[in-house]
Amino acid sequence: MNTFGRCYRLTSFGESHGPAVGGVIDGVPAGFKLDTAAVQAELDRRRPGQSSISSPRREPDRVNFLSGLFDGVTTGTPIGFTVGNRNQHTNDYDNLRHTYRPSHADYTYDVKYGTRDYRGGGRASARETISRVVGGAVARQMLASMGVSVYAYTSRVGELELYPEYQRYDPALIETNPVRCPDPAMAAKMIDLIERVKQAGDTIGGVITGVIKGMPPGIGEPVFNKLQASLAAAMMSINAAKGFDYGMGFDNCGRLGSEMVDNFINDPATGGVSTTTNHSGGIQGGISNGRDIYFRVAFKPVATLLREVATVDDQANPTILQARGRHDPCVLPRAVPVVEAMAAMTVLDQILINRTCRL
Amino acid sequence: MNTFGRCYRLTSFGESHGPAVGGVIDGVPAGFKLDTAAVQAELDRRRPGQSSISSPRREPDRVNFLSGLFDGVTTGTPIGFTVGNRNQHTNDYDNLRHTYRPSHADYTYDVKYGTRDYRGGGRASARETISRVVGGAVARQMLASMGVSVYAYTSRVGELELYPEYQRYDPALIETNPVRCPDPAMAAKMIDLIERVKQAGDTIGGVITGVIKGMPPGIGEPVFNKLQASLAAAMMSINAAKGFDYGMGFDNCGRLGSEMVDNFINDPATGGVSTTTNHSGGIQGGISNGRDIYFRVAFKPVATLLREVATVDDQANPTILQARGRHDPCVLPRAVPVVEAMAAMTVLDQILINRTCRL
Amino acid sequence: MNTFGRCYRLTSFGESHGPAVGGVIDGVPAGFKLDTAAVQAELDRRRPGQSSISSPRREPDRVNFLSGLFDGVTTGTPIGFTVGNRNQHTNDYDNLRHTYRPSHADYTYDVKYGTRDYRGGGRASARETISRVVGGAVARQMLASMGVSVYAYTSRVGELELYPEYQRYDPALIETNPVRCPDPAMAAKMIDLIERVKQAGDTIGGVITGVIKGMPPGIGEPVFNKLQASLAAAMMSINAAKGFDYGMGFDNCGRLGSEMVDNFINDPATGGVSTTTNHSGGIQGGISNGRDIYFRVAFKPVATLLREVATVDDQANPTILQARGRHDPCVLPRAVPVVEAMAAMTVLDQILINRTCRL
Amino acid sequence: MNTFGRCYRLTSFGESHGPAVGGVIDGVPAGFKLDTAAVQAELDRRRPGQSSISSPRREPDRVNFLSGLFDGVTTGTPIGFTVGNRNQHTNDYDNLRHTYRPSHADYTYDVKYGTRDYRGGGRASARETISRVVGGAVARQMLASMGVSVYAYTSRVGELELYPEYQRYDPALIETNPVRCPDPAMAAKMIDLIERVKQAGDTIGGVITGVIKGMPPGIGEPVFNKLQASLAAAMMSINAAKGFDYGMGFDNCGRLGSEMVDNFINDPATGGVSTTTNHSGGIQGGISNGRDIYFRVAFKPVATLLREVATVDDQANPTILQARGRHDPCVLPRAVPVVEAMAAMTVLDQILINRTCRL
Repeated sequence: MNTFGRCYRLTSFGESHGPAVGGVIDGVPAGFKLDTAAVQAELDRRRPGQSSISSPRREPDRVNFLSGLFDGVTTGTPIGFTVGNRNQHTNDYDNLRHTYRPSHADYTYDVKYGTRDYRGGGRASARETISRVVGGAVARQMLASMGVSVYAYTSRVGELELYPEYQRYDPALIETNPVRCPDPAMAAKMIDLIERVKQAGDTIGGVITGVIKGMPPGIGEPVFNKLQASLAAAMMSINAAKGFDYGMGFDNCGRLGSEMVDNFINDPATGGVSTTTNHSGGIQGGISNGRDIYFRVAFKPVATLLREVATVDDQANPTILQARGRHDPCVLPRAVPVVEAMAAMTVLDQILINRTCRL
Repeated sequence: MNTFGRCYRLTSFGESHGPAVGGVIDGVPAGFKLDTAAVQAELDRRRPGQSSISSPRREPDRVNFLSGLFDGVTTGTPIGFTVGNRNQHTNDYDNLRHTYRPSHADYTYDVKYGTRDYRGGGRASARETISRVVGGAVARQMLASMGVSVYAYTSRVGELELYPEYQRYDPALIETNPVRCPDPAMAAKMIDLIERVKQAGDTIGGVITGVIKGMPPGIGEPVFNKLQASLAAAMMSINAAKGFDYGMGFDNCGRLGSEMVDNFINDPATGGVSTTTNHSGGIQGGISNGRDIYFRVAFKPVATLLREVATVDDQANPTILQARGRHDPCVLPRAVPVVEAMAAMTVLDQILINRTCRL
Repeated sequence: MNTFGRCYRLTSFGESHGPAVGGVIDGVPAGFKLDTAAVQAELDRRRPGQSSISSPRREPDRVNFLSGLFDGVTTGTPIGFTVGNRNQHTNDYDNLRHTYRPSHADYTYDVKYGTRDYRGGGRASARETISRVVGGAVARQMLASMGVSVYAYTSRVGELELYPEYQRYDPALIETNPVRCPDPAMAAKMIDLIERVKQAGDTIGGVITGVIKGMPPGIGEPVFNKLQASLAAAMMSINAAKGFDYGMGFDNCGRLGSEMVDNFINDPATGGVSTTTNHSGGIQGGISNGRDIYFRVAFKPVATLLREVATVDDQANPTILQARGRHDPCVLPRAVPVVEAMAAMTVLDQILINRTCRL
Repeated sequence: MNTFGRCYRLTSFGESHGPAVGGVIDGVPAGFKLDTAAVQAELDRRRPGQSSISSPRREPDRVNFLSGLFDGVTTGTPIGFTVGNRNQHTNDYDNLRHTYRPSHADYTYDVKYGTRDYRGGGRASARETISRVVGGAVARQMLASMGVSVYAYTSRVGELELYPEYQRYDPALIETNPVRCPDPAMAAKMIDLIERVKQAGDTIGGVITGVIKGMPPGIGEPVFNKLQASLAAAMMSINAAKGFDYGMGFDNCGRLGSEMVDNFINDPATGGVSTTTNHSGGIQGGISNGRDIYFRVAFKPVATLLREVATVDDQANPTILQARGRHDPCVLPRAVPVVEAMAAMTVLDQILINRTCRL
């Protein structure tokens, strides 16, 4: 299913080497003055060719809004949009017509559908995330108008890892470097590592940390659509994502309850309920408690190696593949805006759903 | 939303101290001879009071099928079922009427709904998982008839951790000990640890590893409903789950692509496509490749400590809470059948959805 | 799919001769004091055995709420409920094991599912509507608290037909007679007709008119989920329903636009927008305009004739069937509360959905 | 919600005077050689400006496929498409900025959304049906490959009405005249009537009859998604539709069960089950029985009259409106392909869903 969300719904389409990718955002609340330039700016962050550590494919990636806006204001009707595919080197992919790239989706698409668009990964291409970024950029503007903000950053590349506490880092520094790490010194090391890996024709994995601030309490559904379950599905639907945790996450496993419990206190600022610590990551019983939500997404190293690899063709005969095309040696930097987009859509959707829970 | 799944759909209901919990399984394929005793056996695995390391609440937890079966065979109509709540110590909870237990859902339910059933956690009780186990037990029988099997085990409690390779462990040993660890020596250590933690009025976290074997290739949807996204949502919807990863998961983050790639080979057994390694965890591009799917779910330590804790009441006034009631010092052993149930429902649902992808 | 609605969702289960029918109402707004006796009263209206013109099957049909209520107030969690099946004459149906009743669902279920519960129509029994009535009774209480009311009445039996204008009839008279016709003189004629038809072993069709008053303007979704489309699906999902129209409905077909247009006026009562006439039936562009919504549902004569009929068995061999069992000679009177229930759920669902359409 | 269907899903977008209308077809079965010229031909049937009895707006209405096809074959990924809006006379609509057209959606959109695109009806324009026709044209090709065909025709305009039996008419004659009536003599009368009505600045209603042939038995879901409920929702979601019935429909109301029952017989052609008559309209218990499905859709006269009408502005002040723009005097002829499209999508969706009902 190519639709994400229940109230705020993104339906996406498009392959790497077709005429365009795009989507429809349905359930867009009416009466919101949309800053389309800010949407484009989000898309620019996702664009390849921005630095030496991302794919050299150069695309203008201009979003073209086709509906749902009138005099710049959302009308409540669906926003259709397209982003053209321009810089296509289709010849790069002729050798993939009958060959399965290791750890890619070529084989599994063929098994499932009996056919596939082999050019540039087709639907499995990272270009699919363009629609997510557009959907997320609209959502995050709406969230901002409610005081909710979402940001993400590269917190690990290979063994280079930031401290786990997101509070240590200033989000204003994230965009100061191409790896999108809010610690400039660590960023330099990460970039250096990625370039060395790239020169070796190899790739490398890492972690993106996401933070949602200003979250109102009471958002999320308690059983199957717990807020963390929706976030997990959102993040694990991103290409190359291999793991998700939130709050203290996997670090809970070695701990005692007495270490992890967040005691409730009277918030001196508001006179309302708050907590001493926030090991829970802002969610209890699947519902936000008003504290920051923070989470991590693990990404595998990109599977495309710029070297010869042993594989099979679509008749299961062994063959050797020399990957061509333009690829990222590390998916993390360009995945940061995608993580933000998915988080923004998830949270806005749940905020809208929440409006129906009382008469 | 209290419905899980798109084709094979479980809708659940019920609070800890109401008359019953239960659910409706819709989209059940017709013509399947259901072994209801095997469903009950799954429920018995989840039941509290089984050993010194789980809650002493004793419930018969008998599943009562109300529809959808005729002469023991599924008819394609929805299976309604209930499981009565019997062993209720409602007085245990009077002190919770106006007090928020730390790291529980009391506060967040109150914010969201303006009201809550405070007895035994209400809907946020672990009894909610009964419906999941019934839904999963039906699914796993159907999967078994297709050659697909699902199992899970406790792979970590505190710092006691098995090797990451599930292949090292014999699933037949899982049920030989109350902690549901397939390594009996490690199980003894885990049980000892849990008992010591319990005596200290504390609790402890851990990891459950899940494995899906016999998975046909081609199952899963490539974009928002990638198989791993559906699994992640399923697992992260379980109470106390804090993290999910699959395949090499978070261990990808420090690795090179050349280490993690699974080269395709001709499978000598079948003459078809297989892979040398299975770092991917049986899924590529969101679609199964026929190899085993394996994943981990991180669980936090149970938040209920049998000691005095500082908290607030529903007017945000500080207060002291002495937890009563019957609680598990470690959620892992009883969560194993829940993890299996959620995995089974996820996989069966995707197998059914897959039938619509070609004419 | 056995789930109705998007926000306010009823999932139903149960066959005629199983242990119980029932359902789960999910998305119930929290904090509503539910009058469970009023729910039971709605169910009593639907119950068979109420008069000489309905089936003599006698069932207490007591609704048993299992969850979602605490101290009589909705908690926002799902309301599970069951209604036991008691007065079963299973022997009445032995002759149906291998025989297809004409114009019933026996054959089509067999083709679809390869099996069926042949006792009393199984899932295709009118008992399935019990769950609808419970779901609708909860919805209508909530609607009443918003000033929205729903009623329906028998407006035609055979050739006996009321005037089309619902305004001519006092809804307070509907329950004064067993045929649920608000014109007592016409009701007497209808009852007489039904009894004569019954004595002949025959059955007869008719029309139910439904009215929704107090509808706020702005409810409904403009494209695929137009309010009239949702109402139509709701009504056409009722057993024996063969047609639906709203406003002037089929009477539009012979008319000119100049006859049918509802001119807008300034409502002298409120100073707001109203219309001179209401040919549109309270909906324009799929969205309510604040005027009464009125619609009709056509019902076929019940297919079970108490006489010998020619049919085939499940091997397609010709056979003669002598229907036994207890059947209604006219479905209309007992379908009135079902029509009301479906209308109430549809409208409440759309009112809830509407809350998400602006920020 | 702007998505139609569960497995085969059309999500549509677009307003009359924005850059384009379009949509995404998701759940498209893979491996089907799509005849895109045939899709265009369906769209051409819907196009305005075809004759003196339809709106003179002239649009090329070329469908532009953006994804989901590779070498002309469906890949199983979503088909995104757009159709540009060209022939816009935006000035025609300046007078509608603050004025509500009687019996149009202007007022209800304003109430719901607080804003609206007033140009040409915006989202409520008949151009919205373009996306439906594209979605339906793809579906009907797939249905044709399974031997299922769908057609519709104008069976009534004003008091000019064909016989109810669709079998009397040759579908090959439908396209021989601009009113799409398979009886050429009646067609001539209808055209004459429409032209006279048009000259009077008036409009007129009518009925479209739809027929589905070659339907396999066993399709449809027995409770809330009965095949007739899905068809009703599909048809009643079309602009100007006011009523739906199927089989003998409203004609059941005056009849006895003994007149309406369809006795089962052994089909001499196949040795399988068939029926003597088909009053049921090919559906029993919500599931197809293999006989033809036939249904009627009632359409109101178009609300736009080319004369002065009394109405109010958006401050509820009385005003006079002189409609401009280009409008159809009778919606029927151009609605025929829309009815076919909605029927085709409904049936294909249910055929796909049906694949999941047995293991």
